[in-house]
Amino acid sequence: MQRYFIPTDAWSELNVTIQGEDVHHMIKVMRFKVGDKIICNNDQSNAALCEIVDIQATKVEAKILDWLDETVELPVQVTIAQGIPKGDKFDYVLQKGTELGAAKFIPFKSDRSVVVWDNKKVDKKLIRFKKIVKEASEQSHRNQIPEVLSPMDLRDLIQFSSSYDIRIFAYEEEAKTDYYQSFGEVLNNTNKNDSLLIIIGPEGGFSNSEAEQLKQNAFHPVRLGPRILRTETAAIYALASISYHFEESITSSDV
Amino acid sequence: MQRYFIPTDAWSELNVTIQGEDVHHMIKVMRFKVGDKIICNNDQSNAALCEIVDIQATKVEAKILDWLDETVELPVQVTIAQGIPKGDKFDYVLQKGTELGAAKFIPFKSDRSVVVWDNKKVDKKLIRFKKIVKEASEQSHRNQIPEVLSPMDLRDLIQFSSSYDIRIFAYEEEAKTDYYQSFGEVLNNTNKNDSLLIIIGPEGGFSNSEAEQLKQNAFHPVRLGPRILRTETAAIYALASISYHFEESITSSDV
Repeated sequence: MQRYFIPTDAWSELNVTIQGEDVHHMIKVMRFKVGDKIICNNDQSNAALCEIVDIQATKVEAKILDWLDETVELPVQVTIAQGIPKGDKFDYVLQKGTELGAAKFIPFKSDRSVVVWDNKKVDKKLIRFKKIVKEASEQSHRNQIPEVLSPMDLRDLIQFSSSYDIRIFAYEEEAKTDYYQSFGEVLNNTNKNDSLLIIIGPEGGFSNSEAEQLKQNAFHPVRLGPRILRTETAAIYALASISYHFEESITSSDV
Repeated sequence: MQRYFIPTDAWSELNVTIQGEDVHHMIKVMRFKVGDKIICNNDQSNAALCEIVDIQATKVEAKILDWLDETVELPVQVTIAQGIPKGDKFDYVLQKGTELGAAKFIPFKSDRSVVVWDNKKVDKKLIRFKKIVKEASEQSHRNQIPEVLSPMDLRDLIQFSSSYDIRIFAYEEEAKTDYYQSFGEVLNNTNKNDSLLIIIGPEGGFSNSEAEQLKQNAFHPVRLGPRILRTETAAIYALASISYHFEESITSSDV
């Protein structure tokens, strides 16, 4: 069923009034008629089954039929700090990462990021990024739209990380050594409702100085399998593994 | 270090003679000089550290310095049968799936595949597919290039599946029911060196008839987390979870 995220002020006790771009989508793309059913999410991650009762050119009125009891959000609040990559790879991380349950995304201005986003670019980009995560949330039937924060450099990120329960970074050099922190060990020490921040380097990975600073600031290096992953694949690996560990592995019910 | 997959007939006891497209890559892209080091893989999944000793316009000669002892291949032989999707999503599954350790790929002609590849198209496509998996294998430092098989319909696939130890399909309807086969349960019953075939539907998923036939032929339905994944994300989720389970989780050393 089609799902829409509707801001708080559009909800009354019995009805939802949909305006803006979603109306275009409902009329032109989905060709909904009065009587059709949709799912509407509010800002508090609740979802309601609704029936369309009135369609006008600029707004659609829907009646709340039932509040749904869904558990589709990852039990761990995962933030992906993605080293700013080339091309459209950041878009890709946002889309796939949203499908896989990420709570927040941060573009990370890394030593080895080739691309620099100037401030003017960033504002425009953030608007587009928010559209990508909203659409991916609707498509994957999530109850929550991930946040996309403004770009941070390493110092910002280390400061920002202090509120997190678990801090890790994907360090490909770990994949080449005999001793490394196992990702499974980290997840075994992670509890439901913990917040987890994972930092991923851009193409070319972290500089030695970045890796050192992260280690000094209580970030655990982890490897994500013994193969060398592209930067945009690392976030996906991490999120899929976290989902598997907490939602699909046979021990997940005991955690 | 740059890695090349070199066919058996190019190896002597002490040397490797590289010809064809790889020579272009070595000279024009990497700008290698005599004395530079590369890794060469043979067809038996062995890797050798080599030193370039001669560069000519159409061939490069390298001396074998050392055979490497690497364990970079997934301990389970995973075959991804991917419902033929729209656009370039199959390319994407090949690239990411190779990075994540898949052994084989099969394009699956599903009831709900919108796109039809005619035979002429298929031959051309297979050439391109093999190039994608070769490059992704080199980039991710694998010792083995995955196979890409010709497209199969459901009947072919069921017949083909008889040699596999583990047969599963990603059934999104499972994500909506209270009882479902846990993916973790399946992997707990999978042993190292087992062969595992996972079938993934195209956009729109499996038809009821397909799901029924698969169940009747000893395929277990599994869900890949409680969110609804795009078709091209499902293979990635499955492979990352298998890698996590066997290579990174704390129980993986006991399996």
